[in-house]
Amino acid sequence: MVFSSEPIGPVVRVGYGEDAHRLAAGHSLILGGIAVPDAALGTVAHSDGDAVLHAVADALLSGVALGDIGDYFPDTDPLWAGLDSRAILGRVLELVRERGYTPVNIALVVTMDKPRLGPLRAQIARNVAALLGLSESEVGVSFKTSEGLAPAHVQTRVTALLTQLQD
Amino acid sequence: MVFSSEPIGPVVRVGYGEDAHRLAAGHSLILGGIAVPDAALGTVAHSDGDAVLHAVADALLSGVALGDIGDYFPDTDPLWAGLDSRAILGRVLELVRERGYTPVNIALVVTMDKPRLGPLRAQIARNVAALLGLSESEVGVSFKTSEGLAPAHVQTRVTALLTQLQD
Amino acid sequence: MVFSSEPIGPVVRVGYGEDAHRLAAGHSLILGGIAVPDAALGTVAHSDGDAVLHAVADALLSGVALGDIGDYFPDTDPLWAGLDSRAILGRVLELVRERGYTPVNIALVVTMDKPRLGPLRAQIARNVAALLGLSESEVGVSFKTSEGLAPAHVQTRVTALLTQLQD
Ligand SMILES: [Mg+2]
Ligand SMILES: [Mg+2]
Ligand SMILES: [Mg+2]
Repeated sequence: MVFSSEPIGPVVRVGYGEDAHRLAAGHSLILGGIAVPDAALGTVAHSDGDAVLHAVADALLSGVALGDIGDYFPDTDPLWAGLDSRAILGRVLELVRERGYTPVNIALVVTMDKPRLGPLRAQIARNVAALLGLSESEVGVSFKTSEGLAPAHVQTRVTALLTQLQD
Repeated sequence: MVFSSEPIGPVVRVGYGEDAHRLAAGHSLILGGIAVPDAALGTVAHSDGDAVLHAVADALLSGVALGDIGDYFPDTDPLWAGLDSRAILGRVLELVRERGYTPVNIALVVTMDKPRLGPLRAQIARNVAALLGLSESEVGVSFKTSEGLAPAHVQTRVTALLTQLQD
Repeated sequence: MVFSSEPIGPVVRVGYGEDAHRLAAGHSLILGGIAVPDAALGTVAHSDGDAVLHAVADALLSGVALGDIGDYFPDTDPLWAGLDSRAILGRVLELVRERGYTPVNIALVVTMDKPRLGPLRAQIARNVAALLGLSESEVGVSFKTSEGLAPAHVQTRVTALLTQLQD
């Protein structure tokens, strides 16, 4: 157990994660575990290309210095082709808890030009919260357009606060 | 009061927000409530295009899972055309406090190629601090150039720490 | 209740920093104090161009509102040409501690298309941890590719948690 013999410091940690995927016609678009309706373009990816869940997973891993999901689910491994990212996040949460931490809250920004995602906000927050054992009031979800910087990509950036599990 | 009946957890939350605007000749450039002097290009936006205050507002909203400023001040609504972003941030702070939280500190990065913003750092920090009821020593302001990645945009990314208001 | 006996609010702060450098042939690539082997392209920079250490330094400075490394080590000053960024981070840590704070943990994402950096993760984490007086388990390091958005750049984004030094 890595942390057990360390002097007691603050019981909180911060985590940060990112993900981006190219968009193209003929692919589905899954964000936060939800198939986005009316999406003309979808993610080009080895797994299901869920840029929200991938970035959340990396934010949690980073807070306890456990590397990134590319270590655990390499995109060169046929084992993970088309993998449901909810399974990735579930496994990551287990790893984080084995280290003695659990998420307090999550703040995530999705940048994508279209379609507008506002109508999906509550559903995405609910999904992410359920996967992490949080309440919806602990998962902040913001949407931005790229303003011309990345019209054919979806990008997500996520900050997480974690706290030590009580014995 | 949404959180009052929840079990007591950590009294802090993290928030994260972003904003970007295209720059073009013939527009003014307002950042952190300040009209930037000697700016050859300004922001193309529905409101006053203040990428600093917009990203700070979204960072605070995300920390308490209240959506983003696009929900409250949609850029399709003529009511908000040219809106002073200081009013946006003031309203957002009210919403955050109604949820029982208040900002502890803010760390923001503005990425823009020119003009150099260093001389405006103290003024921007002072403005943001005053709008949030913080001291200047609680508002970190960094400036970066895009290194060729976004020569005609201003981008801001903001991390915020929030804490529960004392009863 | 973790913070209840603290007279002056939460003892933690969040910081956030970014850095980006263009890549070109004929330059070395240094990340987290390590010369990356097999890098066809390196950073075009005034200093050693270490985008990891620069972003970590800015994240720490922002958490205590001390500006950014461009203030302390301007890239127009020949004094800092080729400067080892480990010296920059060392000086920044001194400044942060003089303000009464010290880092708790760091979460950083490096975005670069090639070479793959996974094999250097432990070494980078170890270096950053040693420079900051942290353990490796307190430095999260994630690697992403740009997915076509920035094939000739290295970018780093860093979130830091800081806490007040005990008297
Ligand atoms: Mg992904
Ligand atoms: Mg805006
Ligand atoms: Mg640099």
